Amino acid sequence: MFNLLPRDDAFEKIFAEMAGYLIEGSQLLEDTLRNYTDLEARVRRLKEIEHKCDEATHRVLVKLNQTFITPFDREDIHALASSLDDVLDYVYAAGERLTTYNIDAPPPVAPDLAAIIVRQAKQLQSAVARMNRHQDVLACTVEINRLENEADGLARKQLGELFRTERDPIRLLKMKELIEVLETATDKAEDAANVLETIVLKMA
Amino acid sequence: MFNLLPRDDAFEKIFAEMAGYLIEGSQLLEDTLRNYTDLEARVRRLKEIEHKCDEATHRVLVKLNQTFITPFDREDIHALASSLDDVLDYVYAAGERLTTYNIDAPPPVAPDLAAIIVRQAKQLQSAVARMNRHQDVLACTVEINRLENEADGLARKQLGELFRTERDPIRLLKMKELIEVLETATDKAEDAANVLETIVLKMA
Amino acid sequence: MFNLLPRDDAFEKIFAEMAGYLIEGSQLLEDTLRNYTDLEARVRRLKEIEHKCDEATHRVLVKLNQTFITPFDREDIHALASSLDDVLDYVYAAGERLTTYNIDAPPPVAPDLAAIIVRQAKQLQSAVARMNRHQDVLACTVEINRLENEADGLARKQLGELFRTERDPIRLLKMKELIEVLETATDKAEDAANVLETIVLKMA
Repeated sequence: MFNLLPRDDAFEKIFAEMAGYLIEGSQLLEDTLRNYTDLEARVRRLKEIEHKCDEATHRVLVKLNQTFITPFDREDIHALASSLDDVLDYVYAAGERLTTYNIDAPPPVAPDLAAIIVRQAKQLQSAVARMNRHQDVLACTVEINRLENEADGLARKQLGELFRTERDPIRLLKMKELIEVLETATDKAEDAANVLETIVLKMA
Repeated sequence: MFNLLPRDDAFEKIFAEMAGYLIEGSQLLEDTLRNYTDLEARVRRLKEIEHKCDEATHRVLVKLNQTFITPFDREDIHALASSLDDVLDYVYAAGERLTTYNIDAPPPVAPDLAAIIVRQAKQLQSAVARMNRHQDVLACTVEINRLENEADGLARKQLGELFRTERDPIRLLKMKELIEVLETATDKAEDAANVLETIVLKMA
Repeated sequence: MFNLLPRDDAFEKIFAEMAGYLIEGSQLLEDTLRNYTDLEARVRRLKEIEHKCDEATHRVLVKLNQTFITPFDREDIHALASSLDDVLDYVYAAGERLTTYNIDAPPPVAPDLAAIIVRQAKQLQSAVARMNRHQDVLACTVEINRLENEADGLARKQLGELFRTERDPIRLLKMKELIEVLETATDKAEDAANVLETIVLKMA
């Protein structure tokens, strides 16, 4: 038996690489928020990770242009790369706020939100590693959505407390934005999960 | 004559159910904003409606996995369910702000914005009930877009007034966010209308 | 030789028209921000340009309904029209903030951000004029993404400075929103570029 169309797993490899950057970046962010020192250097490191993920996204695009037969629809490969990249953009954006806004101490919920992003990133890593296992992918996406709900609840609770207790409006603005950027990263992970769902639905 | 492919209207039924939750939720929000009492209980009720809509979205997904021939493209069914769900997410988010931010009195425009969401929800209900009537769906989506413009105008006017008159920056922040969340719900209804347009364009 | 399927360039013509409005609108915004006088009249003029672009978007939709064979996928034509329209919506939104929020002097970065939108608009104009030249379109979209990164860097720098120096929280809120709306316009141009990428990838 000849395998006339050897399965090309180059895209899966790049997606695995991107998920790896996402895990690395979100772990660095969580650690930075828990041990709040050495900010400048760690945010610079986060920028480097984010940049490597950008380059991987670009490689997906270049490869799409060179590949005649793709493992799934071209536009979905494009959408998946973009959406994974978006998550890390918001992870970096959260880190960047720490230095740009000169935040003296992050709100208590911030490292917990980062920990949720780490868990979502690990689910995304599992999902992109087994794109052809429909049910496994859907189990990951259900968990990613559950984590997004959890993050949303934590963020809303902390924001309520901030509005009750913080009397400095400029400090309130900074804290509010940091929490919202972290929560948006979990939304973007959910968007990536939705792209994955779309892909497995099409393959069904 | 045999009907070899009996038309399966299970998806249309779930979309009708979702539009029903959207009408119920937005009417409850409007009523809460007009008769500003009993907040905790009514926001809890809104949460329940939002949760039922989440479950319906999930049922769409499960059914997609069990259905071989769908009335329109799988990814569009998915996108329509997600976008209807998004509208109610923002309706709930507006309600949630009332309690979390401990808003003493909503700005005058708030119930009027909620009333616009109710009208958009009714248009969405009409549209999903007659997906095979191209022109009817487009008439609904044109009206939904017009309502979004109207909401945008009302929101901008109220925000301008708030920035002119409100001297407490923290109260300003709360009011601004409430108005923006309400306006975003009308944007999400427009997104759902855009998905409906895409579907009827493909069927054309 | 007969040309049985004469190539219909009506869509390309409307996209070119839309890109023209986008250039006109963003140039007017830049000029308004640099020579900060006569706001009411210029924002009114911006509204007119934005309205003409809305009408062009609507014409795309009507034409889609009357056309049997389209030069590329119906849903992509729809998405491209919507995303071009979105850019001008944010350009107008930035102008509108100037009058609604009664901004006395825009932050120094504002005209530079508008200038970046002008450059992105010119790239979008080039791209829609040569949709069948795969590599040319991709070169435009790469430049649009680079410009978005540049805008993001400028915006973050100015926001950091505002948080360090501006002591009036309500003025800070106004400046922050103006900068963010301008930056979002550059994001929307990137979204339009992503639609263009999707289209050329499908044609590949």
